[in-house]
Amino acid sequence: MRKVAVLGIGQIKVDEHWDKSLREIGGEAAFLAMQDAGMEKVEALYVGNMLSPMVSAQNQIGTFFGDWIGLWKQEAVKIEAACGSGAAAFRSALMAVASGDVESALALGVEKMTDKAGRDVTAALATAADADYELEQGVSFVGINALIMRRYMHEFGWKHEDFAPFSINAHANALHNPYARLHEKVTMEKFEKSSMVATPINLLDASPVGDGAAAVIIVPAEKVLRQPKVVVAASASATDAIAVHSRRDPMFLSAAYLSSKRAYEMAGVTANDMDVFELHDAFSIMAALSLEASGFAERGQGVRLGLENQIHPQGKIPICTRGGLKARGHPVGATGMYQILEVIQQLRGECAQTQVDGAQLGMAQNIGGSGATILTHILKLEV
Amino acid sequence: MRKVAVLGIGQIKVDEHWDKSLREIGGEAAFLAMQDAGMEKVEALYVGNMLSPMVSAQNQIGTFFGDWIGLWKQEAVKIEAACGSGAAAFRSALMAVASGDVESALALGVEKMTDKAGRDVTAALATAADADYELEQGVSFVGINALIMRRYMHEFGWKHEDFAPFSINAHANALHNPYARLHEKVTMEKFEKSSMVATPINLLDASPVGDGAAAVIIVPAEKVLRQPKVVVAASASATDAIAVHSRRDPMFLSAAYLSSKRAYEMAGVTANDMDVFELHDAFSIMAALSLEASGFAERGQGVRLGLENQIHPQGKIPICTRGGLKARGHPVGATGMYQILEVIQQLRGECAQTQVDGAQLGMAQNIGGSGATILTHILKLEV
Repeated sequence: MRKVAVLGIGQIKVDEHWDKSLREIGGEAAFLAMQDAGMEKVEALYVGNMLSPMVSAQNQIGTFFGDWIGLWKQEAVKIEAACGSGAAAFRSALMAVASGDVESALALGVEKMTDKAGRDVTAALATAADADYELEQGVSFVGINALIMRRYMHEFGWKHEDFAPFSINAHANALHNPYARLHEKVTMEKFEKSSMVATPINLLDASPVGDGAAAVIIVPAEKVLRQPKVVVAASASATDAIAVHSRRDPMFLSAAYLSSKRAYEMAGVTANDMDVFELHDAFSIMAALSLEASGFAERGQGVRLGLENQIHPQGKIPICTRGGLKARGHPVGATGMYQILEVIQQLRGECAQTQVDGAQLGMAQNIGGSGATILTHILKLEV
Repeated sequence: MRKVAVLGIGQIKVDEHWDKSLREIGGEAAFLAMQDAGMEKVEALYVGNMLSPMVSAQNQIGTFFGDWIGLWKQEAVKIEAACGSGAAAFRSALMAVASGDVESALALGVEKMTDKAGRDVTAALATAADADYELEQGVSFVGINALIMRRYMHEFGWKHEDFAPFSINAHANALHNPYARLHEKVTMEKFEKSSMVATPINLLDASPVGDGAAAVIIVPAEKVLRQPKVVVAASASATDAIAVHSRRDPMFLSAAYLSSKRAYEMAGVTANDMDVFELHDAFSIMAALSLEASGFAERGQGVRLGLENQIHPQGKIPICTRGGLKARGHPVGATGMYQILEVIQQLRGECAQTQVDGAQLGMAQNIGGSGATILTHILKLEV
């Protein structure tokens, strides 16, 4: 595999962009990435998106965006893996450049979610679950996560308030990220008083959806002269049964375990070496499970890292340093690209108040469905 | 790029499979390909599909199928490029294996189209067009193709009956393909008497939709000992503006021109060397335009190849040798995989009555939208 480096990044604020179309938000992130890379053209475009056929009546959005951003004639394609679409698109771009067939690739994660009524979006999101066995029962995504969280609390003896640090940390970090959806401090008191969504998940356990777009340009590593230079040290994808009831253990993200294990091997590192970890905290329970499956905590002990104050930017394993899904927001098909972009920002040292001191190695982990598709990417500062 | 070869193929008959679910039809093709390859596992799964979110309320169908066919834990992802999704998934599989990161990949094209009312499917198919500029005008896909065909007839002086040979040839070949949707001989008389759909496109100019699934397994070429051995000689993807009105010349498939040109260069061949060409005859006008843009005919002269009887299996350039989209059927996201599979069948010499004598080099060309995304693959018999 040819070594690949990052040349440019671009993002827009995750928000309710009612004044902008799908085209416009994706185009903006793509242009910013090209500007950051100092490029006017890239050879191929990989778009990560989940909902455009249902929410915007638009398929073929690889070509749709290639057209819009002036990449006429160039290769373009859409990649979908539910909420894991962003990282899946990044991985596709990576494979194309690593193979030697493509010399520069733009990976774009984009999602327009606020043009439809909330119930329509909830129904559209539910297509990430198993239509025959889960959707058929009327279970929503928050419902599935609530079942997992309740069992986890019962099994390992945690109380609801023990999950508060995930929410508090994410919101505290988002205060310093202009691209974050929510700029609102969360305290333990607020957390415990927040409205219930699906017991035991309340509003501050759950990430907000939103319109968002983030883009990353990659090229062969030897072509990047700019400093700081960030290279892709590892990329791995793994899956589990799509329906939760088919999994051996619904409280263990085996696809996170497998993809992180493979990524560590590829990069020749361990979890201990990681300076920053952008994980997929769609719900606070997922933050705990991701930390456990990826080797940062023992089974059932993921919440302890929060309680022991080890997840903030100067902690043992900083997570959600730009706000995470919880506060930066979760524009589903774009989320994975935001995570990768945020790791790059940390390695470049661009995170100001939430900068992890001397960050040299970072990991982004993106989840599709309730743990069905999980992609892990490791990025490294190369000097 | 690492050289890649085909190890197994599998397909089901394109039909109205009302007794089978999305899961079942895709699984069947995948199992047949694994059986043909003599493999029980593959490392990664790439699913080409367009309509599952809208027709089956199912997203994340990479993992959905990995789960169903027993590829638990393995990488899986969905690729979408409208009707070009099949070949786009094949290309993604190819990039992964060519990069050296993946050792075996299953590319699966699958589409379930007959579980919804025809008007819903027509609306879902229209999402391949530009939602803001084309869909908004109420134009359907057959409408767009009718506009192009009418202009072509006016511009180059052809009559409607001049397109008959495309339909007659496709239907004649499909009679010998058990996997074809339509087994019905078409004559010039039938062609001219067929019901009008959107002037000048009548029913026998248009391909039928259907439920379908086709799968191809690829591995590094050096690992294939079986004879006949088919290798991937070239893969290229190019795009054009998504909306027809934005194209420089709506009668020239510039993305077919570019992707075939690039493929010829990669394979070190010319159009003249091609023994068989599975083109994307969604409408008869597209057969003519594909032949022209890919170097088999001069501008405006694609229909002449049919009129001069050069497109049948022993003609100068055999097309649609297993029935093409017209008679094998057009299960949109699966079509590109059927085309690649059919070229492989020709190179393996498995086509009986429609076998192209001594076929050693074949090309498959898959179109997304009305010419917006076009992928060209060249396969070669290696002895």
